[in-house]
This record gives sequence, structure tokens and C-alpha cells, in this order.
Amino acid sequence: MTTVNKDLQKERERCTFDPLELTHLLDGGVEKTAIRREREEFFLSDPQLQDTVPAEYKSHKEKYEDAIRKGCRVLEKVQELQEQGKADMDVFSQVLGGMLGSAILKDGNPLTLHYVMFIPALMGQGTVEQQGYWISKAWSCNIIGTYAQTELGHGTFIRGLETTATYDSSTQEFVLNSPTLTSYKWWPGGLGQTANYAVVVAQLYTQGQCKGIHPFIVQLRDEDTHEPLPGIKIGEIGTKLGMNATNNGFLGFDHVRIPREHMLMKNSQVLEDGTYIKAPSDKLTYGTMMFVRVVLIKDIARYLSKAVTIAIRYSAIRRQCQITSDKPEVQIIDYVTQQYKLFPQLATCFALSMSAEWIWDMYNNVTAELDQGELERLPELHALACCLKAVASSDAAGGIEVVRLSCGGHGYMSASNLPATYGLVTAACTYEGENTVLFLQTARYLVKAWRQAISGQDLPPTVKYLTQLSRGIKQRPWKNTLTCIIRAHQSVAAGFHV
Amino acid sequence: MTTVNKDLQKERERCTFDPLELTHLLDGGVEKTAIRREREEFFLSDPQLQDTVPAEYKSHKEKYEDAIRKGCRVLEKVQELQEQGKADMDVFSQVLGGMLGSAILKDGNPLTLHYVMFIPALMGQGTVEQQGYWISKAWSCNIIGTYAQTELGHGTFIRGLETTATYDSSTQEFVLNSPTLTSYKWWPGGLGQTANYAVVVAQLYTQGQCKGIHPFIVQLRDEDTHEPLPGIKIGEIGTKLGMNATNNGFLGFDHVRIPREHMLMKNSQVLEDGTYIKAPSDKLTYGTMMFVRVVLIKDIARYLSKAVTIAIRYSAIRRQCQITSDKPEVQIIDYVTQQYKLFPQLATCFALSMSAEWIWDMYNNVTAELDQGELERLPELHALACCLKAVASSDAAGGIEVVRLSCGGHGYMSASNLPATYGLVTAACTYEGENTVLFLQTARYLVKAWRQAISGQDLPPTVKYLTQLSRGIKQRPWKNTLTCIIRAHQSVAAGFHV
Repeated sequence: MTTVNKDLQKERERCTFDPLELTHLLDGGVEKTAIRREREEFFLSDPQLQDTVPAEYKSHKEKYEDAIRKGCRVLEKVQELQEQGKADMDVFSQVLGGMLGSAILKDGNPLTLHYVMFIPALMGQGTVEQQGYWISKAWSCNIIGTYAQTELGHGTFIRGLETTATYDSSTQEFVLNSPTLTSYKWWPGGLGQTANYAVVVAQLYTQGQCKGIHPFIVQLRDEDTHEPLPGIKIGEIGTKLGMNATNNGFLGFDHVRIPREHMLMKNSQVLEDGTYIKAPSDKLTYGTMMFVRVVLIKDIARYLSKAVTIAIRYSAIRRQCQITSDKPEVQIIDYVTQQYKLFPQLATCFALSMSAEWIWDMYNNVTAELDQGELERLPELHALACCLKAVASSDAAGGIEVVRLSCGGHGYMSASNLPATYGLVTAACTYEGENTVLFLQTARYLVKAWRQAISGQDLPPTVKYLTQLSRGIKQRPWKNTLTCIIRAHQSVAAGFHV
Repeated sequence: MTTVNKDLQKERERCTFDPLELTHLLDGGVEKTAIRREREEFFLSDPQLQDTVPAEYKSHKEKYEDAIRKGCRVLEKVQELQEQGKADMDVFSQVLGGMLGSAILKDGNPLTLHYVMFIPALMGQGTVEQQGYWISKAWSCNIIGTYAQTELGHGTFIRGLETTATYDSSTQEFVLNSPTLTSYKWWPGGLGQTANYAVVVAQLYTQGQCKGIHPFIVQLRDEDTHEPLPGIKIGEIGTKLGMNATNNGFLGFDHVRIPREHMLMKNSQVLEDGTYIKAPSDKLTYGTMMFVRVVLIKDIARYLSKAVTIAIRYSAIRRQCQITSDKPEVQIIDYVTQQYKLFPQLATCFALSMSAEWIWDMYNNVTAELDQGELERLPELHALACCLKAVASSDAAGGIEVVRLSCGGHGYMSASNLPATYGLVTAACTYEGENTVLFLQTARYLVKAWRQAISGQDLPPTVKYLTQLSRGIKQRPWKNTLTCIIRAHQSVAAGFHV
């Protein structure tokens, strides 16, 4: 039977609000809490998803084998849910990438990118015909894919990618090639030993001209034997600070031929004769990256919440040092130094959770508009996804370390789950857009917006406050209301000392 | 043949000073550089000390077995050096704890505490007779020891340790007991499966009175079978963020009896009849902890130097983004944002290295004075060791993460060695005195010194500047000389805005 530590019980009884109300708010409603709990029970109670030996004790090979076994079991269970009509789109990101996933698949999973990047890339960048053909194969796991963009030599500078896809109109094929060592694809999850397909981003050459980077679907391994196909050089890149069950891989091409139809042509196209038809907007190619960033913000908010929950509970039950000799030792949560570590991080959890929900809604609205051909809000979404991904991952990674260290030596133990949580979140500081670069992009967007503000141009909703503030502050927002707090933030953001 | 990357070569050629001169300065002279290089060659070239498979790919059990095998091989080689008259006292901390050690024994070693804490505890707290008996056994590795102070429930609050050592004058024995779960010893390196002896810190009870914490030498395992002795409950505490080859353990006692002579009695004593003789100073008990902190500062400085070297070299050879389209991509070290990450950490390496040398000398002087019965400089050394251990570990851990992240995704890979380096250094933020506690102790020392300054009392050398500044600043140190920089630092430290 589970018993609750007395100090923890005491703290809970002192709560001045209804915690269930907050739970419902964070879940998005009473029903969603119920669904979440049912799902947690459904997955977490499965004996096949439980560890008899914690992963940290196993070899890298055993970790991989476990991850594949568990990943497959999770997908079987998702199928069960689907058959019962209980699965929605969310369930995949929940069990493979999100919090529930991180409880089952603690250090990443080789199948995650199949759902989080491969299928979204097909959906976002394939034509309707391509979607019809590939997504059914992918959805039923008859093929397992990943998303191969970053190269050993190029991450931030996407324009500099070196992998080439040269159109040969005589055979109506693209020839994929890795001309240098630095052109090898590097990092894709599940690429090492798992995926047999990938969406590969390469420099498109047709009719003797480079047309910039485009996505291609490429078969990597034989569907029956799983052996790499001729010309495919593939393997795992090695162990990392964390996410050691993601099976990150490398990939090189030695003049690998794929049919013309394997270029994902929703946006740009190459016709049979090699004629290139440009996409209506350059930004459309970045759809998959934007999707991943938006999803990441939600995940990061939850990881920080998990770490903060662990550290605050520990601080309630850990007692250390006597202040007065006839009293028991003090709960460490009562030390001001400890509160300075914990509580700002607790506040950050709420700020990030709310921002994550907000940008998720915006993403869905803007992509719906995109399908109608409206591109107007795309730059704003892009800027916000950049900014929030960088702020969320930096603040959360730093915050997790603060609360981990606040648990003393016990936070250093794997059993606290804090080291693994840090490993997952700090990874997000450098992947899917390196944070310093994203911060600079945010700065550039803001400076541009400021210029537009002072020249009297109309601004997108989230930076509209600059228009008013570009004319100076007329009234200082001293009144202690929510509106005034927002005004004060806006003023500081615009460079005024309030 | 080793070739040097062209960009790296170019950067080296632009160096405006003689790097070898700096090397000699950091090593402590030309001869010491030569000795260091000879030693590095001697240890690193040994095939038995090289990894055929990197540790990260192995199971926890295999990591332990490797660590023991390598630890033993290292000690064989130290013995070779001793026979050739080439070994000094430094060699142990170099190969087991320091930088050379971290190149061979990458994630800690179960034998390290034998040299770094067990033997120093015997030397610092044993009587001359006890030293004669135990140190020869320990030195020859006929016994392997560790140092067991921290308990599951008590780290910072040493006075609160719960393990008891009750003197039974009828048999002239101490009875060691662990009355609660929280009283279990927790963390000692090498305790899990390796050590057969430990210096155990316990509450001494004699003649019905508690006399506070004292050190006892306790046999844990049979010298022949290595089985735990009756009443000894012992095992490994589990995996951690790093240092997974240290074999950290737990230890409980069920009324374990040890001879009276096993109390380390250099400072306090218990006579045959149970009479307690108090140490001349309470601070003497903390000798081993102070030694470890002083050694740590040196190690931490070197770890940061290693991380900074890796990141700066990487930044010289990594190129990313074109500024002008007809030029090659830019070396990332040329970006100001990258320089802001790297160069302050480079400066910190020198500051910490110099401070580490300085406090090492002070430690040796003060302990020599202690042997003469002079205790005067002990509080100052204690305060400085606290402060520098905390500053060094916090700044270095933070700095390592800054430079790790400056390498983008490549810094996340184990191959960069940056994750493991962070794991080793961040551990030092919570062990051997939790940093927040040490910072508060530093603050208390400074406030006390300030009070003494304003009341006109004489101050120890390192805080003497407060005496002058307690009377206000007469002349602002604007002149750009080294003395003025020091004055400016002193003024800021005393709370003046310069």
C-alpha cells in the first residue's frame, strides 16, 4: 500500500486552493484529465512496459533492444486504443515524445521521429497523391522513417547543406550523393539501426542549376532483410549526454538513384523534363521544423514541471539542521535560500505551459490559413516558435539544474530522475535550431518590428504594443492590476525603464 | 601520423607569446613539465589502460570491472615508478583523482578514496602508533579503505549524524550501530563492492554521555573471502549523473564491535576506563575535509581548462554560415557571441589555477603550523577552502556547460568528452560541503571579519584589506595598474561601488 510521508501530507493540507481545479486547467478540462489518467493507467500498468532492471545498468546495445521492444509494445497498445475508438492524434506525441512517453521510454526512442517528424514531413510537404501512397504505409508501420536534414558539417546554416539530389531526365530519377565527409547526414533519431526510409533534405540540381534545398523520400534499407541498400552508408553516431535510446545515426549516399516521384512536391516541383517550379513561399519548406519547435515547447514545459515537482516534494520531506536545539530539524523547503531556488522555477512551469498552449493554438490556426493560401501570419509564427523554443529550453534546462542541485547529492542520483530530465531538456538547447541563433533571429524580428512601428506600419498582433510605445510612454502603469503588469512588461520589452 | 587541422595551425601561428613558457608556469617549472610529460607517456601508452570499447557502451557491471582492473594496473605502474625512485606523493592524486587520472579512469575509480581520503584520514587523525600500524597496511594495499561520514539523512548537518559508537569498558570495545534507516552511511566511493575497511564517523558515547562525532577505523569485509562481516549491511547505492565507476556505497551497522584502539585518537581520546579526553580544538576533526576541498580546487581548475581547450579548438575548426557570398564559411570562433561564451571561461581557468596553487601552499603551511600546535590560521584556511571550493565548482560547472553548448550538438556527444567532464565537476557542487551552505559560511566569515575591522581588531592576511576600507575609500583607484585593479576588487568586495 502506498503511504504518504507525513511532512508531505501536512504541506498538502495547507494548500489554499483546490489542486484538482488547477489540474483540470492544465489538462484543458475535466474530461481531458479523465482521458489522461485512463491512458496513463493503460500504458503504465502494462508489465511489458516496466523495467525489471533500470536502463542505467544496461549496456548501450541492451538499451537499444529494450527501446525497440518497448516502442513496438507501445504501438500495439495504441492500435488497441484505435480499435476501441479511444485514440486521437495526440496519443502518438503523448506516448512517444511527451510526458507519458518519457515515463515509459525514459531516454528517447528510435520510433519517435517516425511519428514526430517523418509523418508530419510527408503530410506537410507531400502532394495529396504522395500523402495517399506514403502515409498509409507509414501509419501502419509497414515502413519506418526518420527525417535527415542536419549534416556533420552543417546544422545552423541550412543553405550550406552539401548532400546533392541531381535530376537525370533521361531516367526520370534523382541521384543522391554525399560529396564530402562533412556532407554525411548526422543526428537523425532512429537512423542508426531502425529506420528503413527517410525524408532527406538535399540541394536540388536540375537542368544544370542548383535550386536550393528540397525534401526527398529515400529508401535506406531492404524492407525484408533490413540490409542497407547499395550506395547507402549508414550507422549509429555514438553515445551522448542523454537520449541514448534514440538511435541517432549517420547517412551517406554514393550516387543513389530514386524515382522523380520521391521528391516531396507539395510546394516546389520538378517536372518530367526537369523544369523546376518554385514554391509560392520559401518559408513553406520550414513547416516540419516549425511543427517540431511548437511541440517541443509543450514537452519542455512538462519536463520542467516534473523536475520541479520532484524537487519540491523532496524539499518538503528532507529535514536538515536544527535552528533551535529543542525543536526537530527544519524541512529544507522552509529555508529562504531553498525557496529562491524552487519557487521561480515553479512560476516558470506555469508561464511555459500557458505559452505552449497558446502557440499550439496559433500554429493550428496559421497552418489552417496556409492551406487556404494565406501566408500573412507565417513570419510571426516563425519568429514566435524560434523565440519560445529558445527561451523554453534555456530557461527549463537551467531551471532543472537549479532544482536538481537544490536536492543536494540525492539530485545527482539517477533514482531522482533529475539527471535524465536534464539530459533530455538540455539537448533541446542545441537541436532544432541552436538557441543562440534563435535568440538572434528573435532580436532581428524585433528590431524589424520596431522599425516598422516607428515608420507607422501595421504590426502583427503579438508585437502591436510596439506601435503605441514607439511614441513614448504617456502614462506610467503604476496601478497594480493585471493590465498594468502586462503594460509594464510591454514597456520593458520596448526598452523603457518602468 | 597525426596531422593538425589547417585552421587550428593558423590560429596557433598567430599566437603572440611563447605557449611553452605558459605551460611551464602552469606546471610549476620546466622540470615539472618534463616529469608530467614523462608520466603521461608512461601511463597513457600502456595498452592495458586503453579502452577497446568506450565505457559508455558497457553495462554498469562491466564499467565497474574495468575500473577495478584499470585501478589495479595503475597501482602496479605506480609501484614501478616507486622502485625506480620516480614517484612522489603527488603521483597518487595525479593518477587517481587528477587530470591524468581522468584521462585513464574517465568516470572515477573505486580505489580513489583509498588514497584521497582513507590514508589522509589515518595520517591526519591517527596517533603515531595508529599511523605506523594502519598506513603500512593501506600503503601496500593489503587493506583497501574508504571514508564513511555522510548518511542518507545527514550530509550538511554533521552534528546530526545518527550512527553511534558506544564504548563498552567491560570489553574495551566500541559498539557501532545504525539505529534508523536514515543513519545508513551513504555515498562513500569504493564502499559498494571494493573496500574492506573504512574510517567511519560516528557519535561517540562513553560513560553514558554523547561526546559528538569522532572517527573510527572499522573492518567491513573478510580479508580473505571479501564477504561482509557479521552485522555489516553493505552495497552499492546505484547509478548517477556521472562518476559511475566510483562504486559509491551504503553501510549499516547492527551492533558491530571494534577494539578501543580503532578509534582514531590523534585529537580526542577515550581511555580504557571510558574517560574522554577532548581535542584541543574542534576544528581539528575537519582536517580530512579541508584537505579534500583544497585538492578539489586544483582538479576543478584542470577540468575546466580541459573543457575550454576542447571547445576553443572546436571553435577554431568549425565553420558555419557565410557572411559574404564569395568568401568561405566563417570559423565560429570569429563570432562575437561565441567569444562571449569562450573567453570569460578561459580567463576563469587561469584565475582558478592560480588560486588553487595558492591555497595548496597555504594548506601545507598551516598544517605544518598545526603540527607545532599553532592553530591561529586554521579559521582563515577553513573559510578560504570553503569559499574557493564553492566558487570553483559553481563557476567551473556553469562554465563547462556554457562551452559545451557553444559546440552545438557536437558538445552533446560523449565523444566530445564534455558531458563526462560536466558530470565530474557538477558533482563537486554538492559533495564535500553543499555549495549554498559553503557560500553562507563564507558570508558569515566575511561579516565577522567586517565586524572585527570596524571594531579595530587585527584581521588575518586575506581579509586585512577590510581594515583599511572600513574607514571608507580615500582615493578612488582609477589608475590603470595591477595594484589599482586589486584595490578596485577589494573595494567592490567591501561593498563600495568604484
